[in-house]
Amino acid sequence: MNKQIIFKERPVGVPNENTWSLEVSDIPELNNGELLIEHHYVSLDPAMRGWMNDTKSYIHPVAIDDVMRSGSIGKVIKVNNNPNFKVGDCVTGWGGVQQYAITNGDNWYKVDDSLAPMPMYIGTLGMPGMTAYFGILEVGKIKEGDIVLVSGAAGAVGSVVGQIAKIKGCKVIGIAGGKDKCEYLLNELGFDEAIDYKSENIYSALKQKCLKGIDVYFDNVGGKILDAALSKLRMRARVVICGAISQYNNTTKIDGPSNYLSLLVNRASMQGMVVMDYAKDYGKAAHQMAIWMKEGKLKSKEDIYTGIENFKETYERLFNGDKKGKLVLKVKED
Amino acid sequence: MNKQIIFKERPVGVPNENTWSLEVSDIPELNNGELLIEHHYVSLDPAMRGWMNDTKSYIHPVAIDDVMRSGSIGKVIKVNNNPNFKVGDCVTGWGGVQQYAITNGDNWYKVDDSLAPMPMYIGTLGMPGMTAYFGILEVGKIKEGDIVLVSGAAGAVGSVVGQIAKIKGCKVIGIAGGKDKCEYLLNELGFDEAIDYKSENIYSALKQKCLKGIDVYFDNVGGKILDAALSKLRMRARVVICGAISQYNNTTKIDGPSNYLSLLVNRASMQGMVVMDYAKDYGKAAHQMAIWMKEGKLKSKEDIYTGIENFKETYERLFNGDKKGKLVLKVKED
Repeated sequence: MNKQIIFKERPVGVPNENTWSLEVSDIPELNNGELLIEHHYVSLDPAMRGWMNDTKSYIHPVAIDDVMRSGSIGKVIKVNNNPNFKVGDCVTGWGGVQQYAITNGDNWYKVDDSLAPMPMYIGTLGMPGMTAYFGILEVGKIKEGDIVLVSGAAGAVGSVVGQIAKIKGCKVIGIAGGKDKCEYLLNELGFDEAIDYKSENIYSALKQKCLKGIDVYFDNVGGKILDAALSKLRMRARVVICGAISQYNNTTKIDGPSNYLSLLVNRASMQGMVVMDYAKDYGKAAHQMAIWMKEGKLKSKEDIYTGIENFKETYERLFNGDKKGKLVLKVKED
Repeated sequence: MNKQIIFKERPVGVPNENTWSLEVSDIPELNNGELLIEHHYVSLDPAMRGWMNDTKSYIHPVAIDDVMRSGSIGKVIKVNNNPNFKVGDCVTGWGGVQQYAITNGDNWYKVDDSLAPMPMYIGTLGMPGMTAYFGILEVGKIKEGDIVLVSGAAGAVGSVVGQIAKIKGCKVIGIAGGKDKCEYLLNELGFDEAIDYKSENIYSALKQKCLKGIDVYFDNVGGKILDAALSKLRMRARVVICGAISQYNNTTKIDGPSNYLSLLVNRASMQGMVVMDYAKDYGKAAHQMAIWMKEGKLKSKEDIYTGIENFKETYERLFNGDKKGKLVLKVKED
């Protein structure tokens, strides 16, 4: 039997008890060429909120009555005539929030779970890590000596952004919510400065901790923090728009950045990115990141919760800030 | 005697009768190396509003009791030992809103007023024309076949932006206020489409006239029109932030573009520009523009008012839309 989180109703604002239902279905027989994957972990990402809206975006919305979309990782347990996979392969793909997935193997990738634990392959070595890597290097175009500000800095993407910027010789300031996360940035990840947006005034904190302004701002949150960051841009600064978690549950218009004319004054640019555009280079990036991890320069943190029944409560941690690093749900039952 | 517009008080919102005063002063003797310029015309530009605010910008604010800053053009009428200029030279620079300027010649440029009338040298062949040229070519990076949207399209900058885009083989849609200006865009400047923001709903007009979306948006206005344009971006679109005339007189926060996440969805970029950065290439650009004008591909329109006493009323035309093309004030008395 396959426990699945089914998307039942498009939320207005924050998802509620009607958004999803937990359903149990039979696992159908495999057609020719198909494989059956037993999911061990599914990935929980802020982008999930956007996928539930019926609006034009970089990916089509999740359909009502479909399994909730998510990244996932697990093991092939059955193969019907597919030469590319064999039983026991560890694979990652877009399996959705369910315990078993059936696929012809398209867009599933084999990974070696003896080299790194599975959750890391949907975290630092997966989509969030790739987002950080290409976002800060290709869009942010950081160079040695740059002053880099990152929001959502204790999260799956932000924590990797900041560490890569440190590796590249930048000065890194992270914005996160709470004393605990800020200490994590400073003491465990080696950030130069941390700003606790929950207890500090963001403008005065930036004034104090980014005295010389910002060369690159990597934005995961939008809203007031984006606006404050824009007020501190240096000449020819780059703003990477990766997400806007503060705005995803809005029931009214998104807050636009009032300080956007700082782009004009400072000849700066603001550019959006979607990680899928870099798919052909994922392998190279993962290889580089694995080296940095081995050298102790890049730390990966996963925050793992257990039980597909706890999907909704775990999902909520994405938005209430109650997690550190990459949020992962273990769906395999022991 | 020199009639001067003196900046007396920083306006909050729209300038009023206390903002400037008309004063008359003696013309002092020239020091060694100086020249005396009799202004024929001064340039009126929306950027003037920003120069009056005491905020960090791309140029220092006009000081209280200084002559109001403006571009200007006139003739050298007296020289005290300066080998670079002679009496009779036609020169353009930052002379300010006054009838006579004294300078050592730094940042003043000689132009040939037998080739083009003086007002054109502070319009299409001057700062607004340079802004259009470098903005659309270097920042907008237009290429043949692009769909280009420009706001403030009947203005000094916008009208040149649209014409250059047509020369480069783009489809051009202009946004302007009023039927008269829209007809000017279509019938005199050869734009493909025109949108009258005063009588049309901007979203439905864009839906109809930019059916395939926008590759480049050149923004002179900000506010609701910027927001609407962002909703129509195509993949890898470029948004050029040149100005935000709709916001310059705000007494509250500037309206940020609520639709900025379209940058993410469409992997698009928004970049600010300031024309001074291209100063070393002004000569080349002016040469190219002069050729286009001679070939009849680029039309220049100046809207000329007369009398330094009428400065305030003429300035107001920048913001109430009551002008077409480049706004110029003749300050030389016949």
